[in-house]
Amino acid sequence: MHKIELTPIGIIHTPYQQSRDIPIQGRFKPDTQGKIEIYEPYVAGLQDLDGFSHAIVIYYFNQSTKETLVGQPYLESEKHGIFAIRSPHRPNHLGLSVIQIEKIRENTIVFSEVDMLDGSPVLDIKPYIKYFENRENTRAGWIEKHFATGNIPSATILK
Amino acid sequence: MHKIELTPIGIIHTPYQQSRDIPIQGRFKPDTQGKIEIYEPYVAGLQDLDGFSHAIVIYYFNQSTKETLVGQPYLESEKHGIFAIRSPHRPNHLGLSVIQIEKIRENTIVFSEVDMLDGSPVLDIKPYIKYFENRENTRAGWIEKHFATGNIPSATILK
Repeated sequence: MHKIELTPIGIIHTPYQQSRDIPIQGRFKPDTQGKIEIYEPYVAGLQDLDGFSHAIVIYYFNQSTKETLVGQPYLESEKHGIFAIRSPHRPNHLGLSVIQIEKIRENTIVFSEVDMLDGSPVLDIKPYIKYFENRENTRAGWIEKHFATGNIPSATILK
Repeated sequence: MHKIELTPIGIIHTPYQQSRDIPIQGRFKPDTQGKIEIYEPYVAGLQDLDGFSHAIVIYYFNQSTKETLVGQPYLESEKHGIFAIRSPHRPNHLGLSVIQIEKIRENTIVFSEVDMLDGSPVLDIKPYIKYFENRENTRAGWIEKHFATGNIPSATILK
């Protein structure tokens, strides 16, 4: 199969050195901040991103050293297909997070809703547009039961 | 900068041969269907994805032949930084779409909410989890005015 070669556009700085320190999603630990440093050749691409409260970051799980097709999610011991969970140990090791933009200065995005490891390479940033992304009437398979009470499961806070 | 090499896990089949035929987001033209064909080595990763109504697909804009840092979105003539718009002509040419899963049979995902070109290589599929992805209190910069009436702008239906 034809390979696709990507070049990091920046790097993510966060307080998280190990995956066990990370909340399952950044919004569940909103007091933490991170920074995205955009490399010089790409800084002009940030124009007008500061008009958005949130962005979607696509990054590389560079510390994952394995690739599985069936894996165990953080929330339970049951195994599921890798395309039905959000594990980093996936083909192509692509990560996706919605971040809250706090401020943008020159080549740096300060953000909250942090759930990436320190040093993760950034591959793309897209504006978060709720008219595009939000879905209300969804079924969320195996994960639904963990949110059924309307509360955030404790395992998502710090695993 | 260190390059990252990815391998397509599948291919997207859609009725759209040219970008001018595509709705700005698939949900604005819900009657169209597409298929994702997952390549054989990755089919086991689909287990339990059929429990989810929606998925996030990360794919490659393989027909984009240019890369710009400032570009013009579909909705207006004003230019914006590439990280503040969803244009395919971006560094690394990564596309992201939320799709509605209609059914999954063996190596094929039949879906609606289609906004990809036919033949786009698939790089990852993640379950859509509204508890993770949805944001309600957002600012959407330059795009907000186009949705201010509560209506879907006509330019998004078919550009």
